[in-house]
Amino acid sequence: MIISLLTDYGHEDEFVGVCHAVMRDIAPDVPIVDLTHGITRYGVRQGAIVLRNALPYVPTGVHVAIVDPQVGTERRGVALRTGDGRALVGPDNGLLSLAWETCGGVVEAVDISRSPHRLEPVSATFHGRDIFAPVAARLAAGAELAEAGQHLDPDELQVLALPHAEVREGEVVAHVLLVDRFGNASLDIGHADLAGSGLTLGKPVEIEVRAKGGGSGGGPPDAGERFIATFAQTFADVRPGDVILYEDAYRMLAVAVNRGDAGAALRLSPDARVVLRPR
Amino acid sequence: MIISLLTDYGHEDEFVGVCHAVMRDIAPDVPIVDLTHGITRYGVRQGAIVLRNALPYVPTGVHVAIVDPQVGTERRGVALRTGDGRALVGPDNGLLSLAWETCGGVVEAVDISRSPHRLEPVSATFHGRDIFAPVAARLAAGAELAEAGQHLDPDELQVLALPHAEVREGEVVAHVLLVDRFGNASLDIGHADLAGSGLTLGKPVEIEVRAKGGGSGGGPPDAGERFIATFAQTFADVRPGDVILYEDAYRMLAVAVNRGDAGAALRLSPDARVVLRPR
Amino acid sequence: MIISLLTDYGHEDEFVGVCHAVMRDIAPDVPIVDLTHGITRYGVRQGAIVLRNALPYVPTGVHVAIVDPQVGTERRGVALRTGDGRALVGPDNGLLSLAWETCGGVVEAVDISRSPHRLEPVSATFHGRDIFAPVAARLAAGAELAEAGQHLDPDELQVLALPHAEVREGEVVAHVLLVDRFGNASLDIGHADLAGSGLTLGKPVEIEVRAKGGGSGGGPPDAGERFIATFAQTFADVRPGDVILYEDAYRMLAVAVNRGDAGAALRLSPDARVVLRPR
Repeated sequence: MIISLLTDYGHEDEFVGVCHAVMRDIAPDVPIVDLTHGITRYGVRQGAIVLRNALPYVPTGVHVAIVDPQVGTERRGVALRTGDGRALVGPDNGLLSLAWETCGGVVEAVDISRSPHRLEPVSATFHGRDIFAPVAARLAAGAELAEAGQHLDPDELQVLALPHAEVREGEVVAHVLLVDRFGNASLDIGHADLAGSGLTLGKPVEIEVRAKGGGSGGGPPDAGERFIATFAQTFADVRPGDVILYEDAYRMLAVAVNRGDAGAALRLSPDARVVLRPR
Repeated sequence: MIISLLTDYGHEDEFVGVCHAVMRDIAPDVPIVDLTHGITRYGVRQGAIVLRNALPYVPTGVHVAIVDPQVGTERRGVALRTGDGRALVGPDNGLLSLAWETCGGVVEAVDISRSPHRLEPVSATFHGRDIFAPVAARLAAGAELAEAGQHLDPDELQVLALPHAEVREGEVVAHVLLVDRFGNASLDIGHADLAGSGLTLGKPVEIEVRAKGGGSGGGPPDAGERFIATFAQTFADVRPGDVILYEDAYRMLAVAVNRGDAGAALRLSPDARVVLRPR
Repeated sequence: MIISLLTDYGHEDEFVGVCHAVMRDIAPDVPIVDLTHGITRYGVRQGAIVLRNALPYVPTGVHVAIVDPQVGTERRGVALRTGDGRALVGPDNGLLSLAWETCGGVVEAVDISRSPHRLEPVSATFHGRDIFAPVAARLAAGAELAEAGQHLDPDELQVLALPHAEVREGEVVAHVLLVDRFGNASLDIGHADLAGSGLTLGKPVEIEVRAKGGGSGGGPPDAGERFIATFAQTFADVRPGDVILYEDAYRMLAVAVNRGDAGAALRLSPDARVVLRPR
């Protein structure tokens, strides 16, 4: 048994520490793994993707995720069981949905907004401390999911929609999902989905970067800035400073600059549209 | 048993990691909870408030706090026992005083500057590693407080003075104590202390923000910038971008902007004076 | 047994958390100490110095360090045993070399690039997750070093070269090795090495700061900006705002400004040359 924790709380304040303290009080011997607390403030989609990417490497346990712009509203807090036996705990705003899709779906769910495990009085703004941490710790200590809240039809849970990359002949239109600390930008397409695009490992690729949302709808797409990259296996295949298209550690295509910062150099930010063409 | 740790060490350097290592060597099985290491450099008052706020959620144990602008001077290091059975360890500069006030006062104290548990040679600048961490770990491992240093009269301990909010008819003059990562600013007054002010939940409030220290003394107060807020229970009670006065997670009144950053928008920083008036 | 971890991964992304998760899966009960994840991106030398400084305070165990600009190239990953019984794990780029020099040298080494303990498929960019974390956790769980990879002659390991301070009559030419969060700058010379320099505790010192690399070679050295400091034992020996030369917590000479930021005020950054002269 393990508890994992992913939030947008950052490390400046005591939010993470207080959640740890609450969990330690209830489940003193369960290891807690901090997946990250560096999700962009209110970055529900970023949190959902990072959780989905990380979970295959995390032992089965109770997995808490908190990115919660609607805290204090009527949005539900939920705890649920996935098909592969994990428990997920967090706000019902789509944050957990990409994870459960890759963990066998939802087999049981409860609304924990008024959980018997919550700390009273529940504050309007810190449900991590008052609801999510104590519920997760009780589950990790052996409590039944059904006792943690009110039964909820899994079909009522919020699901997150991601953009979809399009593969055409001679062109792939993808979107930036994440940009990491090193400036490497992950796209919403995997190597396996490139068939028919004409993109070939070892060959040059033209990367056109369009602003977030630019050129959508029925009109002609806005032209973006263009860069020449190499579609390669590792950074070592190109010179320092060169742009590389590669399969990243979560098996998604990504754009990087060898020893540089692609996010800054190519102005890649989440939701930017990236058109890839063989050269 | 648990050890909690709160410092201004940040996460860039190895200071926190080395303190953990020292404690692990002495008390390998005691869980360590990092409350936060994001206290502003030398922010003794901020550290004192955060420690006081967090401790009610932390299991009873040994609680180390280090914000220590006078390290290397003759200021004492202390370890003490509170009325409710906690051990507090840190510099004797007021940092621990708000915590012990809410934990039953000090029932026993020792000066640990030359503690038998310290690591020799004691450096002039890193007492976290050489004094506070080893003393805390020994206490967590079962050592007696009296053995950790020289007996000290609790009345000799440094105590921190906080500003005091004033409630008048039709006006509350408060001060910003903390501003968190989300820009939410906690004031030095609780909801329960508003009687007679005319402030009413659900009604509009005028918030006048004066610069730090401005208008004190006997002269006429400097006028500050004014904002209209709603005195509400949760963020959801106002529109995104609106200013809200609410009771925060530690039951203090606080100023926030729904989905925004009140610290930046209203120029709220610690010690700023905030005048609240019903509208 | 303990696992320690030092990287340049930062806390914004999930890299550290995923490494923890992988290690928890293999060695659930071994404590993990995060020495720091704040090493400057690709700061191999900084990482090597911090690891060397910190290890004497860390219980004997498996010590992972990852600062790896060449990940994805043919550079080796290594695991090795030191003379004093520690296991070190990381890329073979010199990062581990300062540590093993102070830990009794290398008595056994293996190339873990194709370790049987690695996670398949090994990504090109995240060897922390796929190689270093699982190998370290297996070692911590009791696996033999010889089983973790292919035997390697310790003499083939990469070794890091540091600059050398020069002590002349009336002058010490030193270099900045590290600048910490507080702006304190450690030099490549210890108090014990000052004999003959004329520098005396309690006396004033002239500090001349030359730009990184400036004045090297055979020509006349570029003149730098000059400051007057006190060679003192602790910050308390000088007034706030004064410059101090002192022995830091790792027994190296360092430059600080009492209650200030010497790195900013004196423009001290790693590799800057610092000339010390008695006044």
